[in-house]
Amino acid sequence: MSPHKPPLSRGGKTEFIRMVRYKSENQIGVLAEFVSAIAEQGGSIGDVTTRKLGKFFIWRDVTIIANDREHFAHIIKAIRALKKTTIEQIIDEVLERHQGGKIKMELNHPIETVNDMRAVYTPGVTDVCRLIQKDPAEAYNYTWVHHTVALLTNGSRTLGLGNIGPLAAMPVMEGKAALFRKFTGYNMVPIPIDTTDPQAFIETAIRISPGFGAIHLEDISAPECFEIETALVKHLNIPVMHDDQYGTAVVCLAAVINACRLVKRDLKTVQIGQVGLGAAGSAIARLIMAYTNCNVWCCDKNPAAVDRLAVFRQNSATLEEVMQRCDVVISTTGVEGLISPSMVKPQQIILALTNPIPEITEEQAMNAGAAFYSDGRYVNNLLAYPGIFKGALETHATNINDPMLLAAVQAIVEVTPKGDVVPSALDSSVHGVVTKAVAKAAMASGVAQKHLDDEYFDIEEKT
Amino acid sequence: MSPHKPPLSRGGKTEFIRMVRYKSENQIGVLAEFVSAIAEQGGSIGDVTTRKLGKFFIWRDVTIIANDREHFAHIIKAIRALKKTTIEQIIDEVLERHQGGKIKMELNHPIETVNDMRAVYTPGVTDVCRLIQKDPAEAYNYTWVHHTVALLTNGSRTLGLGNIGPLAAMPVMEGKAALFRKFTGYNMVPIPIDTTDPQAFIETAIRISPGFGAIHLEDISAPECFEIETALVKHLNIPVMHDDQYGTAVVCLAAVINACRLVKRDLKTVQIGQVGLGAAGSAIARLIMAYTNCNVWCCDKNPAAVDRLAVFRQNSATLEEVMQRCDVVISTTGVEGLISPSMVKPQQIILALTNPIPEITEEQAMNAGAAFYSDGRYVNNLLAYPGIFKGALETHATNINDPMLLAAVQAIVEVTPKGDVVPSALDSSVHGVVTKAVAKAAMASGVAQKHLDDEYFDIEEKT
Repeated sequence: MSPHKPPLSRGGKTEFIRMVRYKSENQIGVLAEFVSAIAEQGGSIGDVTTRKLGKFFIWRDVTIIANDREHFAHIIKAIRALKKTTIEQIIDEVLERHQGGKIKMELNHPIETVNDMRAVYTPGVTDVCRLIQKDPAEAYNYTWVHHTVALLTNGSRTLGLGNIGPLAAMPVMEGKAALFRKFTGYNMVPIPIDTTDPQAFIETAIRISPGFGAIHLEDISAPECFEIETALVKHLNIPVMHDDQYGTAVVCLAAVINACRLVKRDLKTVQIGQVGLGAAGSAIARLIMAYTNCNVWCCDKNPAAVDRLAVFRQNSATLEEVMQRCDVVISTTGVEGLISPSMVKPQQIILALTNPIPEITEEQAMNAGAAFYSDGRYVNNLLAYPGIFKGALETHATNINDPMLLAAVQAIVEVTPKGDVVPSALDSSVHGVVTKAVAKAAMASGVAQKHLDDEYFDIEEKT
Repeated sequence: MSPHKPPLSRGGKTEFIRMVRYKSENQIGVLAEFVSAIAEQGGSIGDVTTRKLGKFFIWRDVTIIANDREHFAHIIKAIRALKKTTIEQIIDEVLERHQGGKIKMELNHPIETVNDMRAVYTPGVTDVCRLIQKDPAEAYNYTWVHHTVALLTNGSRTLGLGNIGPLAAMPVMEGKAALFRKFTGYNMVPIPIDTTDPQAFIETAIRISPGFGAIHLEDISAPECFEIETALVKHLNIPVMHDDQYGTAVVCLAAVINACRLVKRDLKTVQIGQVGLGAAGSAIARLIMAYTNCNVWCCDKNPAAVDRLAVFRQNSATLEEVMQRCDVVISTTGVEGLISPSMVKPQQIILALTNPIPEITEEQAMNAGAAFYSDGRYVNNLLAYPGIFKGALETHATNINDPMLLAAVQAIVEVTPKGDVVPSALDSSVHGVVTKAVAKAAMASGVAQKHLDDEYFDIEEKT
């Protein structure tokens, strides 16, 4: 059994996406000819938009997904050979969407009059400063601080790109900030920190923390990310979470729970294995243990990764042993093709999460007898961090603990459409449900400084 | 001669502002009765808004400016005594304007479809990261970095409030960020830094600098601000400016030039004195020297402030000497009532800039024979920083130099309405004119990395 493919998926291959803006004769069959020409070359099609419709001609924008630049050139050549179609422009849609950046600052209220200016700036602002000086909790009411998350990275492990540094990491950070705004209505400010020294990173984060209600750590390489997260959680009285650890772990655990349901297994009674103990892997193993109260078999080619925690050492095994013993195997190694089909145990549930090319492909795993397979494109951590941070902010939580993370897992499981592994991040109800679950867990587990009343939880999420 | 008062001005006194929401009988003379009752108690009136108009009743919101809470209570008592008027609500408009903060993050483009999400986040974003990794200059095109200024403070000298720390300084920072957005369309992100150690501040600013196109320093106490600004200008290849130094100096110099014009004196031939060599004072003295090519007489009760620069040492004098010798005196000491009327020289131009209560009042100065007087409410540094930073960002300037600052001064002078000392910061044409002047000066002085063509400068500003 295998879940539905997400749109535009190309089975783990890398992609080259362009929008082709073209004009064609307005006749039955011309679009079919156009689409067939692309399909014949092995290209995929995304959105098709009609820009203009005339009596004789029709103008369309079509997104074409190729394997790479060369493949795309072949597709274009095929389109150019069509008699009734003329390409007007080839647009790099992705680059266009990043032009000038993806986020901006805006005013909460217009400033138009002298009165307005004197209220938001001097002399009016003086009273507000004094109020907060006397009682720092007033910052919840009269600043943006407690609706705002600092998004900190040093760019040392950005997506699959490795250490690309703080500036080149900005497009990812802006994307996360934009999606946070979209999904929660709250603010996330990307602040790259130019250091690979964990102590310098920690120091910097602590110094800038008063301006923010929470800290989201992102794309920091292991093992530095563990030291950084641990120190910040310890020092600061605001929520701190490394998304590549616990954001990923939350979505992964939700996917594993759903996968078990799909193939009718009980996660709490099966043997589970975690291959790779980097940022994501070690958080996944830890969170599954917190959820099942059972051990997870762990392996990593780096002995230091296994040695880092006692629970990993006690349950360490070789890759072969993990594959042989476990009913559920999750791999996050970054190593393409690490798992050979011969290692697959019949009826195994496999989540091979390395992007863009996983440890084993769906075809290999299913042919080798796996009951269920998913790659990393499903385990989209956009599902977790917005609601986790918003829930923590709403309750003025002092940190993000396991009950809050497990509440987020449960919420994601609950809103997953039947037959799917996880819901779509674009489903606006998901983030509201996660927010409320996390807020409730924060209150129940004693880390909330603000109590939300029943009315807050009674409002139904849009679906 | 004295300039027009800005609206709501109360001659240097502190203020207590509330909006009174009331209902009164709809008859001729009722508003007059209401307004007179306030005036009789010595209260001022700001905006008057009619909320609802009925046949028999009228509902209005009136902003009332009192000296303090007690004074306001007297005014309210007088209003309550009016027979035809009933107060419905007293609203703290200022606090209301700060509720939930004054700024927010927003998306540049909507994210609605899976296609959108895959363009702004993975997998699309990977290409953009790679592009910037290869050529960091691409960050100008595909991130918000070069439209975004980091607004850094440690809150050690916030307005007239002293060291109120980083969190209580946030309302001021958000106000500056909101006004920057309003006046330039670009972004300013407030990031308080929790340290009073200049080296720690510098380190932190350098580490977070890759995410920003410029650094605006704000409300940092002297002498630490000098060390911080100097080090950041030296280390970084992006514009850095301490607004309390050079933003204030630019507006002050423009005001001095305009004041000289108003009383028909030539700034380049008169004796000028600067009383107080803190952040603002020392920058004012330096910028006037750069403009006039003549020395400025300086005094400060703190010998270290005078010793800091050779030009200050060489032209140091006592307060009495400065007052006796100079045709133009600017004071920025923070000491209320420092200048006694007996020190005033006939026909002197006096800018007593300490807020909220200046070194000498207008009444005292004019009665003692001054030709011109202005207090700090006119020297509004909202006039300078938006255009200075935008001009620097537009040209990818590597720093902000004297030619750029003097170009900003000249631009402000040019757009000052006849008879005024400075233009209104709300006049939207001001910031565009300053931006262009600064951009031109950046190009002419060789610090611009991007050349703007004539068309950029030809577009006329709205007035």
